[in-house]
Amino acid sequence: MASQGEDGRLFLEDLSVGRRFAAGPVRVSPEEVLAYAARFDPQPFHTDPATAGHPVLGGHSASGWHTASLTMRMVTEALPLAWGVVGGGGEIAWPRPVRPGDTLRVEAEVLETGRSRSRPDRGWARLRVTTLNQRDEPVQVLVTRLIVPSRVPDSGTSC
Amino acid sequence: MASQGEDGRLFLEDLSVGRRFAAGPVRVSPEEVLAYAARFDPQPFHTDPATAGHPVLGGHSASGWHTASLTMRMVTEALPLAWGVVGGGGEIAWPRPVRPGDTLRVEAEVLETGRSRSRPDRGWARLRVTTLNQRDEPVQVLVTRLIVPSRVPDSGTSC
Repeated sequence: MASQGEDGRLFLEDLSVGRRFAAGPVRVSPEEVLAYAARFDPQPFHTDPATAGHPVLGGHSASGWHTASLTMRMVTEALPLAWGVVGGGGEIAWPRPVRPGDTLRVEAEVLETGRSRSRPDRGWARLRVTTLNQRDEPVQVLVTRLIVPSRVPDSGTSC
Repeated sequence: MASQGEDGRLFLEDLSVGRRFAAGPVRVSPEEVLAYAARFDPQPFHTDPATAGHPVLGGHSASGWHTASLTMRMVTEALPLAWGVVGGGGEIAWPRPVRPGDTLRVEAEVLETGRSRSRPDRGWARLRVTTLNQRDEPVQVLVTRLIVPSRVPDSGTSC
């Protein structure tokens, strides 16, 4: 079977375009929403459960960066890349708020892959990582480029 | 003075293109690097201080999402937007690792602003938020679009 290494670790050659991964679910603990917000995003619509009527968020919501953090946790559990889940960044969007008590899950898909031009031992994979709530509504869409090792070092023909 | 509201809160009209904000510094506590990683990004190069020789990260480093979280904390302290710092997302890049014990600060600049086409009470501002380490090297560059209230509701001429 060519889709995965013998030890379950994934290499560039395993990440065919269109391959999908699922992760989660996790519940967004109301206590953790408050703790995360107190430390990293201390704005009333994240720290105060009684918040109401915010013109953008409506009521009490989790920080978008908390959603990103929970998403990363789920991705690390679902994507056993040989060098780990290591990326240089990406594009992130939060189309709707996450509420305390929501349940989130992740759907990821490989959009594109390529080899490094300078390093024969590696390449990259662009993935769309969508975080959905319990109503299957996207709460975060991340398109990220991960650095992935190659099982077969490049001979140089694609440099 | 037109650059800020009487109570210090900022509106769309205060965010002229080129306006800059500085925030921080904060020290990246080695204990928090481990605690954040254990909860949200439990990969050995974040959870194990003895990590060495990772092909991308080199040694022990903070999760990029931890850097993003610390950046958000600094931004909330430096940018008193009238509705708070609320964004729909953006582009994020981590050009180099953050090491436990680093000291980070933020430089932000307004790149572009505009009015909402559908909501006369608000507009948006695109900001570049650069997080730098103690050697003034960028460790994160975030270009984000924030939703900002208008002091003077739009009359409709730009709809």
